Amino acid sequence: MLQQLPEKTVERLSQYRRILLNYRFVEHAYIYSHNLARIVKTNAANVRRDLMLIGVSGDFHKGYDINELLGKINEALDYSHVTRIAFIGMGELGRSVAAHFGQNNTSMQIAATFVFGKPPANLLDGIPCFNISELQQMIRQMNIELCVVAVPENFARELTTILVHAGVSGILNFSPVQLQLPAWVHVEQFDIITKLEKTAYFMKRKHRGK
Amino acid sequence: MLQQLPEKTVERLSQYRRILLNYRFVEHAYIYSHNLARIVKTNAANVRRDLMLIGVSGDFHKGYDINELLGKINEALDYSHVTRIAFIGMGELGRSVAAHFGQNNTSMQIAATFVFGKPPANLLDGIPCFNISELQQMIRQMNIELCVVAVPENFARELTTILVHAGVSGILNFSPVQLQLPAWVHVEQFDIITKLEKTAYFMKRKHRGK
Repeated sequence: MLQQLPEKTVERLSQYRRILLNYRFVEHAYIYSHNLARIVKTNAANVRRDLMLIGVSGDFHKGYDINELLGKINEALDYSHVTRIAFIGMGELGRSVAAHFGQNNTSMQIAATFVFGKPPANLLDGIPCFNISELQQMIRQMNIELCVVAVPENFARELTTILVHAGVSGILNFSPVQLQLPAWVHVEQFDIITKLEKTAYFMKRKHRGK
Repeated sequence: MLQQLPEKTVERLSQYRRILLNYRFVEHAYIYSHNLARIVKTNAANVRRDLMLIGVSGDFHKGYDINELLGKINEALDYSHVTRIAFIGMGELGRSVAAHFGQNNTSMQIAATFVFGKPPANLLDGIPCFNISELQQMIRQMNIELCVVAVPENFARELTTILVHAGVSGILNFSPVQLQLPAWVHVEQFDIITKLEKTAYFMKRKHRGK
């Protein structure tokens, strides 16, 4: 068991992995740290440090062995354990993510989705969809560990408390609300309002200079 | 016109603004940099530098005047210009964001949403919903500047090219695809796959130590 990795390293490992999965079909068996760095927009020193942390060192002339690297990243990010996920209020974005995992990933399984109204017959192909009133029961019954929560602000606190009681220990929260949950629950905050305002700011400045 | 602000400053200004809007109803007329710092999880020196960049300095004893601060942030982030936005494939998450802007913000207006299937009668209250086939025409007709794109990977490149031709200059992209668009288009990448993998990683580690 490796030690806990820094947040940024975990993010970059996830990105390296996706790049490598595409890269190995079209290019060579090796990749240089500066190639990875360019694609994820970091520097080569960061890449080398990240990879050293998971116990991989490259060949000075050839770079990193892609298959070895993929194996080590899978090990570091614990890809052998399949995390069961539910989406609560995600609509088409859920479909997009489900399609991505279906093609690229076996370590995440979208087990269920929940909506506020009447569940549509086939929101996501082959993934059951329930009304939000069944949340507590179905989360428990289906052993769901991680939930993506994209509900209006006034529901987010109550809803996430229900999730934690039902056994969820990881939450990716899109609602612009700070959640107060037990310390053993990992909450990742995804602040879409801030991202929208930032996009608008830089868009306006670039557009003026056009 | 102030100079262009750093990315992190823009993100934090957006967050300060939301905090101040809530804060002024329940607390005093002034706020200290260390209070803002604690809520947005940064340090007080960063807060003071951010606010200096937009031309606000606090009183050593009382802190920052909340109304003055709000005025300056609104000016810096150009809140007088209303950005017209469309959501493409966002479902309930779109509803959540629309509700937030409805209550807190006048600088962003969600003008339309687009879905792949038959448009539901009232996906977002009072916001028209169209089928994706009407994208080019409606984006142009409604003067939409910024789009949130949450569509499957295989559609994202083609769809964003259509958007740019129709006059869009800002894109918040949820699809795990690197877009190649003209330099005057501002693309903000929101990597949900990486965030999910990161959440799973830290969740598993915390849960074991429980």
